[in-house]
Amino acid sequence: MQDFFKNRRTIRKYTDRDISDELLNELLEASFRSSNTGNMQLYSVVVTRDAEMKKKMAPFHFNQPMVTQAPVVLTFCADCNRFVKWCNQRNADPGFDNFQSFFTASIDAVIAAQTFCTAAESVGLGICYLGTVTYLTQPIIDVLKLPEYVVPVVTLTVGYPDHHPDQPERLPSEAIVHQETYHDYRPEDIDRLYLEKENREANRNYVEENNKETLAQVFTDIRYTRKNNETFSESFLDAIKKQGFMKCP
Amino acid sequence: MQDFFKNRRTIRKYTDRDISDELLNELLEASFRSSNTGNMQLYSVVVTRDAEMKKKMAPFHFNQPMVTQAPVVLTFCADCNRFVKWCNQRNADPGFDNFQSFFTASIDAVIAAQTFCTAAESVGLGICYLGTVTYLTQPIIDVLKLPEYVVPVVTLTVGYPDHHPDQPERLPSEAIVHQETYHDYRPEDIDRLYLEKENREANRNYVEENNKETLAQVFTDIRYTRKNNETFSESFLDAIKKQGFMKCP
Repeated sequence: MQDFFKNRRTIRKYTDRDISDELLNELLEASFRSSNTGNMQLYSVVVTRDAEMKKKMAPFHFNQPMVTQAPVVLTFCADCNRFVKWCNQRNADPGFDNFQSFFTASIDAVIAAQTFCTAAESVGLGICYLGTVTYLTQPIIDVLKLPEYVVPVVTLTVGYPDHHPDQPERLPSEAIVHQETYHDYRPEDIDRLYLEKENREANRNYVEENNKETLAQVFTDIRYTRKNNETFSESFLDAIKKQGFMKCP
Repeated sequence: MQDFFKNRRTIRKYTDRDISDELLNELLEASFRSSNTGNMQLYSVVVTRDAEMKKKMAPFHFNQPMVTQAPVVLTFCADCNRFVKWCNQRNADPGFDNFQSFFTASIDAVIAAQTFCTAAESVGLGICYLGTVTYLTQPIIDVLKLPEYVVPVVTLTVGYPDHHPDQPERLPSEAIVHQETYHDYRPEDIDRLYLEKENREANRNYVEENNKETLAQVFTDIRYTRKNNETFSESFLDAIKKQGFMKCP
């Protein structure tokens, strides 16, 4: 079992083979068995199979080719709408129009999404997460017709693998795991922990291709710039507010 | 494999059997293979094994007995500190002091946490999520000595199962899954989708024990009150700010 986890790869190219409704529902049902807060199940999944819908969504995912190429696109949403409606029909006063409720629902959506990924990979499917859903969130809300108290949190593309990419490196576990309390990193720790990453050929090539001095600059100047992070912070917070989640505090 | 996912249970009682360092590290390493944003690995895990540390943490998790009873407690944190330090040492200007970066890092922390859970369950361990980590966040930050740009997002208790609880109900999949666009719920949909939940004996008992009219009131008046949700919204947002993530916008 551990090998299964250790050998996984993100899959960005898919064969033409479709995923049957039966298998997809089976995998989704398996994912809904994972933990969630108070068994309130504060999440929803929007399934995109229709080519027109994929075309509409693609630009809001920066035209990453997986969106139109994958047989199935799944958008996992933090969803308090269903629960709030239930409460209102049952003479109960729901207090879910706040950041805590949004965040709790988001965690539950991600837990379900990640269980879906593992279940899908266990039957030979490949997945890719699109973080872009928290960048251009409002147009995605509009395309998927998400009502108040529903915010998309992660998008997955799913299909049968059509490539077997190299595994990207990971930091050594000692970089991630802290015993009992957080042990902050000294400059020499950072040097040691990032050494393998910096020396990897693919990463050296990124530095060269982009005319940068260091790999870190590829991240800060090109991939995850301060300007983009700040712009998308603002637009994502606006979307969360507009969907009704920041009424208090 | 699908049976494995469908038969899982959250485990709240553990035997005295310890989890070896070797197995724990193996499972953590497996979880770090899961997807993450841009391979930046913006998360950390704090391992709590020490009885004194568990005692210190327990009150901030509302004294849920799993905290002191489980051999291992894991706190998965959104962590931009390590990456920011690396950037600063590499002549790069990191822009991660914003909500988008916090949220991205949180998603990655939850993805790793949930992969850990599945890997742990696959070798016979049991887990329980403690959502309380986003309630009394600041004291947990203090106990675990988390620096700037690190916020705890989910806590897990882990151990060998000492009970085999009933599986709680789940809403039918049609309640969660939407085809192509979100199809909002009519009153009769809500009645139908929540019928099984409301009729379940354990849930009927909760209503009676708590002298409530409806199951929804058990949630809104006792478990997840508006007052608590609002209080914990404020304290969680304060902690996120204090850790440096809301400088912009």
